[in-house]
Amino acid sequence: MEQSYVIGVDIGAQTAKCGIVNARGEVLAQSILVSNTQEDADSFIGALASTLKKLVADAAIQGRIRGIGVGAPNGNYYTGEIKDAPNLVWAREKNIPFSRMLSVAMDGLPVALTNDANAAAVGEMTYGAARGLKDFIMITLGTGVGSGIVIGGNVLYGHDGFAGELGHTCAVRGGRLCGCGRQGCLEAYCSATGVARTAVEWLEAHPEEPSLLRLRENITSKDVYEAARAGDKMAKEIFDFTGSILGRSFADFIAFSAPEAIVLFGGLARAGEFLYEPIVKSMNDSVLPIWKDKVKVLFSSLSESDAAILGASALAWNL
Amino acid sequence: MEQSYVIGVDIGAQTAKCGIVNARGEVLAQSILVSNTQEDADSFIGALASTLKKLVADAAIQGRIRGIGVGAPNGNYYTGEIKDAPNLVWAREKNIPFSRMLSVAMDGLPVALTNDANAAAVGEMTYGAARGLKDFIMITLGTGVGSGIVIGGNVLYGHDGFAGELGHTCAVRGGRLCGCGRQGCLEAYCSATGVARTAVEWLEAHPEEPSLLRLRENITSKDVYEAARAGDKMAKEIFDFTGSILGRSFADFIAFSAPEAIVLFGGLARAGEFLYEPIVKSMNDSVLPIWKDKVKVLFSSLSESDAAILGASALAWNL
Repeated sequence: MEQSYVIGVDIGAQTAKCGIVNARGEVLAQSILVSNTQEDADSFIGALASTLKKLVADAAIQGRIRGIGVGAPNGNYYTGEIKDAPNLVWAREKNIPFSRMLSVAMDGLPVALTNDANAAAVGEMTYGAARGLKDFIMITLGTGVGSGIVIGGNVLYGHDGFAGELGHTCAVRGGRLCGCGRQGCLEAYCSATGVARTAVEWLEAHPEEPSLLRLRENITSKDVYEAARAGDKMAKEIFDFTGSILGRSFADFIAFSAPEAIVLFGGLARAGEFLYEPIVKSMNDSVLPIWKDKVKVLFSSLSESDAAILGASALAWNL
Repeated sequence: MEQSYVIGVDIGAQTAKCGIVNARGEVLAQSILVSNTQEDADSFIGALASTLKKLVADAAIQGRIRGIGVGAPNGNYYTGEIKDAPNLVWAREKNIPFSRMLSVAMDGLPVALTNDANAAAVGEMTYGAARGLKDFIMITLGTGVGSGIVIGGNVLYGHDGFAGELGHTCAVRGGRLCGCGRQGCLEAYCSATGVARTAVEWLEAHPEEPSLLRLRENITSKDVYEAARAGDKMAKEIFDFTGSILGRSFADFIAFSAPEAIVLFGGLARAGEFLYEPIVKSMNDSVLPIWKDKVKVLFSSLSESDAAILGASALAWNL
């Protein structure tokens, strides 16, 4: 019997990463489409369909694609729509029937859509650090903080398809203004941008303290990571602070769904060497005694470049 | 065909309420067993089995019982054990294989065990305000704050059977000491005892403010409720404060599981006339915009005396 394949698409603000994946989770071919130049959904989906058709033709596997899995900001699994995604030029303040449109453009191939963090959770469960786990929480630490919650082997979508917005639970009452317009969200502290904000705040608040970070303009979380690797005290303390906020939030998440593990994924998770200990300490100091020292903290084991595509593609096997 | 019945048992610190329930959710006969005099699990379970057998014999329905559903503090659905239940004299600091022991004492009838809040959630879904809902969170406002989380029509038990400890999520960082030994738990503010603590704190902190509560000794939440009904300003403000803490915690719970409704149950929920508005206002002020004004807050519709038995009994239909 001929082997079947799926297509995985990870849509971000700047690019859409597309790949063909086999049943062993190997990415056979991939392609990147710029996603911030199309003015409307028709143009974007037209360009995406051309890219995917070329990928399939080049791999000479026409007729052997089972389906397409897509992870996108604000992607709704139930409705197949992308709703009010502020970072996607072509989807801003609109309700795009994405799955239906892409399926039509792809000559009827079935399309599964979910948000990017849920896609990452599915990918991690199918191919990564969460293989064999049925109850875990995936936290994506990137430009924002996203989450995908897995319960009994299934992604939790909730009543309306939007469950798992843990980046917008309150970490600090009355704290920093978040991009969502509210105050003190976990994302405002523990995303890559949150880490950079902490650095800027601390440098201003402690002008007497020396730090390699003072040499930088427009500090990013990568600068903080590099300074920490170079032994910078303030940079390390910034990760201690970030990890401790994550850990105490994790304690509350554990009280909700009693997961076996929390899996960290995304750009900032690369700073695992500085985040792991403060997260685990703070989590175990904060959690109810019945869960103390019982919940694992894991880092994604998927290779950076393939992770997003694999996560999205894993959805398509169930189509 | 002869009608089948189930037995529901709700075990509390002082009493165990037992009842025979038919498929329409009617309690046909009930009995109360004192539960704080037995020194060990054998004695308690022996007494419970005698009580149940007498109930069945008096109702003349021997051989027509499908099973027994039990709600108990720290009852674990997966293992059938009651573990370290500090309020149960006969189960303190022990691990009681409760379901197995009761099944043996009841000549092999199957027994389903869960914690009291999960039992209430099942009862509410089967017979009460949550009928027809598949995704909701039950919050029990009693001596403590418990929770039962329902996802896709099933109670969320989590990896280890202990999911849904929302009373022990952090409502106030560094806040009041909770009975669990940690600080700032929702339970320390929004349980019946939490409301009484607020009253005592406020009376001390504002000696100039007149209040009917000053006439009371050993203030209880019932005193605060009665004072509020009599128009007392401070008592009403205590419920505003309690409701606003509940509401902002609910906003975080919604970000987790995106429920259709939050259902309130338990002694303190009787103060619904004073809690409803501050809860709903605070919840909608705090929640992510996608859920604003979309999640219902409901009060249990089960009659007080039957609720606990019905909740426990509903478990037994699936045995």
